[in-house]
Amino acid sequence: MRILVANVNTTESMTAAIADSARSVASPGTEIIGITPRFGADSCEGNFESYLAAIAVMDAITSYPEPFDAVIQAGYGEHGREGLQELLDVPVVDITEAAASTAMYLGHKYSVVTTLDRTVPLIEDRLKLAGLAERCASVRASGLGVLELESDPERAVAAIVAQSREAVERDHAEVICLGCGGMADLEESVAAATGVPIVDGVRAAVTIAEGLLRLGLSTSKVRTYATPRPKTVVGWPLNR
Amino acid sequence: MRILVANVNTTESMTAAIADSARSVASPGTEIIGITPRFGADSCEGNFESYLAAIAVMDAITSYPEPFDAVIQAGYGEHGREGLQELLDVPVVDITEAAASTAMYLGHKYSVVTTLDRTVPLIEDRLKLAGLAERCASVRASGLGVLELESDPERAVAAIVAQSREAVERDHAEVICLGCGGMADLEESVAAATGVPIVDGVRAAVTIAEGLLRLGLSTSKVRTYATPRPKTVVGWPLNR
Amino acid sequence: MRILVANVNTTESMTAAIADSARSVASPGTEIIGITPRFGADSCEGNFESYLAAIAVMDAITSYPEPFDAVIQAGYGEHGREGLQELLDVPVVDITEAAASTAMYLGHKYSVVTTLDRTVPLIEDRLKLAGLAERCASVRASGLGVLELESDPERAVAAIVAQSREAVERDHAEVICLGCGGMADLEESVAAATGVPIVDGVRAAVTIAEGLLRLGLSTSKVRTYATPRPKTVVGWPLNR
Amino acid sequence: MRILVANVNTTESMTAAIADSARSVASPGTEIIGITPRFGADSCEGNFESYLAAIAVMDAITSYPEPFDAVIQAGYGEHGREGLQELLDVPVVDITEAAASTAMYLGHKYSVVTTLDRTVPLIEDRLKLAGLAERCASVRASGLGVLELESDPERAVAAIVAQSREAVERDHAEVICLGCGGMADLEESVAAATGVPIVDGVRAAVTIAEGLLRLGLSTSKVRTYATPRPKTVVGWPLNR
Amino acid sequence: MRILVANVNTTESMTAAIADSARSVASPGTEIIGITPRFGADSCEGNFESYLAAIAVMDAITSYPEPFDAVIQAGYGEHGREGLQELLDVPVVDITEAAASTAMYLGHKYSVVTTLDRTVPLIEDRLKLAGLAERCASVRASGLGVLELESDPERAVAAIVAQSREAVERDHAEVICLGCGGMADLEESVAAATGVPIVDGVRAAVTIAEGLLRLGLSTSKVRTYATPRPKTVVGWPLNR
Amino acid sequence: MRILVANVNTTESMTAAIADSARSVASPGTEIIGITPRFGADSCEGNFESYLAAIAVMDAITSYPEPFDAVIQAGYGEHGREGLQELLDVPVVDITEAAASTAMYLGHKYSVVTTLDRTVPLIEDRLKLAGLAERCASVRASGLGVLELESDPERAVAAIVAQSREAVERDHAEVICLGCGGMADLEESVAAATGVPIVDGVRAAVTIAEGLLRLGLSTSKVRTYATPRPKTVVGWPLNR
Repeated sequence: MRILVANVNTTESMTAAIADSARSVASPGTEIIGITPRFGADSCEGNFESYLAAIAVMDAITSYPEPFDAVIQAGYGEHGREGLQELLDVPVVDITEAAASTAMYLGHKYSVVTTLDRTVPLIEDRLKLAGLAERCASVRASGLGVLELESDPERAVAAIVAQSREAVERDHAEVICLGCGGMADLEESVAAATGVPIVDGVRAAVTIAEGLLRLGLSTSKVRTYATPRPKTVVGWPLNR
Repeated sequence: MRILVANVNTTESMTAAIADSARSVASPGTEIIGITPRFGADSCEGNFESYLAAIAVMDAITSYPEPFDAVIQAGYGEHGREGLQELLDVPVVDITEAAASTAMYLGHKYSVVTTLDRTVPLIEDRLKLAGLAERCASVRASGLGVLELESDPERAVAAIVAQSREAVERDHAEVICLGCGGMADLEESVAAATGVPIVDGVRAAVTIAEGLLRLGLSTSKVRTYATPRPKTVVGWPLNR
Repeated sequence: MRILVANVNTTESMTAAIADSARSVASPGTEIIGITPRFGADSCEGNFESYLAAIAVMDAITSYPEPFDAVIQAGYGEHGREGLQELLDVPVVDITEAAASTAMYLGHKYSVVTTLDRTVPLIEDRLKLAGLAERCASVRASGLGVLELESDPERAVAAIVAQSREAVERDHAEVICLGCGGMADLEESVAAATGVPIVDGVRAAVTIAEGLLRLGLSTSKVRTYATPRPKTVVGWPLNR
Repeated sequence: MRILVANVNTTESMTAAIADSARSVASPGTEIIGITPRFGADSCEGNFESYLAAIAVMDAITSYPEPFDAVIQAGYGEHGREGLQELLDVPVVDITEAAASTAMYLGHKYSVVTTLDRTVPLIEDRLKLAGLAERCASVRASGLGVLELESDPERAVAAIVAQSREAVERDHAEVICLGCGGMADLEESVAAATGVPIVDGVRAAVTIAEGLLRLGLSTSKVRTYATPRPKTVVGWPLNR
Repeated sequence: MRILVANVNTTESMTAAIADSARSVASPGTEIIGITPRFGADSCEGNFESYLAAIAVMDAITSYPEPFDAVIQAGYGEHGREGLQELLDVPVVDITEAAASTAMYLGHKYSVVTTLDRTVPLIEDRLKLAGLAERCASVRASGLGVLELESDPERAVAAIVAQSREAVERDHAEVICLGCGGMADLEESVAAATGVPIVDGVRAAVTIAEGLLRLGLSTSKVRTYATPRPKTVVGWPLNR
Repeated sequence: MRILVANVNTTESMTAAIADSARSVASPGTEIIGITPRFGADSCEGNFESYLAAIAVMDAITSYPEPFDAVIQAGYGEHGREGLQELLDVPVVDITEAAASTAMYLGHKYSVVTTLDRTVPLIEDRLKLAGLAERCASVRASGLGVLELESDPERAVAAIVAQSREAVERDHAEVICLGCGGMADLEESVAAATGVPIVDGVRAAVTIAEGLLRLGLSTSKVRTYATPRPKTVVGWPLNR
């Protein structure tokens, strides 16, 4: 089976890292394809960038030339998953939700540790809409931008460990979700330093997507995610 | 003062109708400018179309050549308001929220009557995120598509009156919000037939936007809606 | 049009200040009339005083000798708005709700900074009943009584600025509502000191009331706020 | 011990009936005193009447000439309990809350069956504020006014039984609360006809009040219900 | 009348203490019988022990040889109350719920102070299911195990007073519930040290149980708590 | 890897059916072992039976003589999962939660169709505690007992299809969860008849458990699910 893992920003090295991370937990026989949007920001840290990414991911996925079996939306707290579900017949898994639903099997409460303070409300809103917020103890910011995670991994680990400890000690989290598509490399160090299970959304999403495929299940088409009605759409697909 | 009222679909006649409706309640001295996106669907009735509209509205508003004082996002239950708030320094008012917050001054519970069944969850989700859902008795669908409202107004009134009555009698709504940017013309007939206050989101939004301007208030820039950080954005502005 | 702005306490100087504040944002042609109850406490800081004020405001409004177009209940966190809605056919706007619904257009979360700690639960309860609590980050007390705001404005600004900063930094509020009818004069200084939008409930209520009038809308009379049934009422109107 | 049971309307026969009902479950040695307000409506079926009753009950209780050990506020869904708690040092029990908290010991969900449709939102709001709404399956109206319960008990039983059955069968209630201070006489007939436990608020409140007294507990005075601060209050006590 | 008060652990001295405490508030004529389970842990501080206690309490109660009128489940935050309600026709009162519903008559918010940190989530979950969590300000742990309360009462008082003060000052609790069946002896000292009402669950439960009996009410048998259907049950009653 | 799938009742044929169903989606290399409790009821349809099953499952799992990698608690709406999590170091997956979290990837709202009306509240309570209730449109009963599913599959399909259709049409569910461990055989027929995705909890749980193992994650031991403290436990393990 083939799973497309869509980065939400245009940074190719991050796409590669995300795809590698996905591959590390994929079943034998699962092909992971990293997808980089053709337009958008080099990192998504707010609503404008996230809305643009939503459309860019839909553009990239629907113009992918080969068949595929599932899609992972690999942006944490980003817009767009519902649109992909309308456009596609295969399962779509958002990493914010995958991390949360996985964490909920591991502890009574979980926290998310993300990048900048300004992305906290985006994640909170996604969890609220997903109906997965009730057992979320907190969403905390490390203060590091998305691209700093790559450029300064040591500082990234330190900042994320610090916030994870606060989440466990003050907010009573028992599990930590790494709140950014590009944090997978940090999983091991953060786990070692905190002693609680650490969930990376991309990896979690691979297991969820494989599970749905194994169950033979895909998006319900009776209402919210029905295929768009035929109508005149100007300028789509974009740039073509 | 100048208020931009952004239609979310590409149907010019609907932009004109929306702008006329907005003008009917604007204060003397307020200039209403209807904005039609340069790309997107001729009607928005689902998530894909709505996400595309979100970007198309941001594209249209940020490329408007003259100064303006406020923006009304005139799509009911649509994505995008948060992105506009980041990109702009002037107030942004979404009609879903404007209708709801206005209705809440008029009765204990309100209902929304919208177009197709598939758009109901979009509206419910917007109200939930906006923190305005608690006094929402129901969101009901008339079964008519957005464009049918224009092409067959008599049937539209009948369908909306029927659902409004159900909302009042079964769901205990005391106020009805017309759940589509293009329903303003129906307000009077529905009010006459149901005996409850009818709120049109576009008109309500004009009064909210004018109110914010009169109070000298605009979007807080300290966190969620801070201006996007400077970064490389490929393909934006679109098509240019 | 004529809007009655009802103070909830018997302190005439506070009525005058509230009315002046209301006038500062009223549209040309709007006449603002300050109303002082004929009985009650010289400041409302708890439930007994607030219930008494509820009846005193109904007494004062229903005995106002001239026609009027809307009423603003200018007590923060006070009882009584629903009774006015039953007794009157014109719109009634409560300043607790007006501040909250206005703040929600300006930021992701808002806080209220009020007077005494004992009034915090009253405000929380009003927001909960109004369905406007979900995006409320916190209600904080400055520790100053209502009348101290007038007598020692400098200390009042300092205390309110201190709590507003806590609200922004710890509670993640992006907008501050001034939680007392008599705080309008402090708006500018608090805004300057905190850098976030400051909403005064009285001013916000004027724009909401004007908006409802412009929309031609008033309280729904089908259920909760229907005119009281004819019955024997002893001792009302009071003192007459 | 002496418990004051305050009727919220001015109908003396209803006070007598309420007091009799209270006596039927009071412990030996408990003296029940029925209190009729000196002013207000002959029945409370809406917010204006309820706010007036709130003050009238405070007036009547605080002018009661003898010592007493607890107060029962015997209006269902009425305002005022918080004010009494501030003014008094003895426990105050509201019958809406007493019925609900008692019902929650008897079944998984409970419903309230009340008088007129217009009083339903008042009861819902009281339960919400009391934090007792989550297990409330529904609040249903029998369509009979408060005074019709007394004048036509047969029709009252039939209407209440009919709504109680709907509550059990459709709303999955397992217990019914009689949602009016004057419904106690109907308890037996409704229980016989429905087969579920029927809770009368007045009777339930007597057991709660006696329980608090036996535990030696009364209202906390540290914050919300602290005694009102000394201040100038004009026109209180009323009419004196 | 006879009330069985079931300890959830096998420590006989704790059963005796609980029964004594219950007797201290029981009405004249009420016989309190302390019940110790025949199997289980000597203290319950987690889910395994609590589930075992649930069954052990059902075993002990259903094998009690004499008639009885009500049962009190005297474990704080423990499982099992629903099972007892199915098996019995007499009222069953859980002390977690009794403490909470009693506290809610005494202050705007209450906190629970319990033993170990690991039992906090159990209590939170019981309150959530009981629909009594909304006015719960916090559940705080003293850090002392159940048996340490008995062995070192001085340290217990100090730890509980410390957490109670935090609850009042930081979490805005106005009432404290002692979150363990074996804390009743501490009530007086904690009340003296904190100045807020202190609710012991066992004592509160006695008054609730007596109240239900006086009202002639018991568990509804129409749905959730209907008597188990006749079926083959292997190994029950246990150990016989 | 070896996964233990624990039936909650003592009916061996149901254990076999559940294990077969689990095997049908297990990955190559996963060994599925069906576990039947040594005591308890032949079907679980209420709280007493469910609490007994909770202990019986813990007894059976902890006395399983070989190593294993994960446990699936295969009772829908049953107690006990938290106890297993304390006692074990391997992941524990409850089928009620597995079905719900899987359904939430497939549609905006899901419903559960279960056996008897009396089990509905158990399922609702499990979903509420799990924080997975918000997107649950309804829990509906087919009216058939657990063992009737096996004895009369045709009638079972008809009853479940009927309720599923109601769930989709009236409650707006887009996905149906089969609310009983023994319903897996019905999945295909119900899917064919309703046109929406049908989720069987046992199968879903297998994919979740395998996913957790692939991610190298297990239950957090820092707080709620820490191993029980060493203490005297009488009568455990049971019957030995």
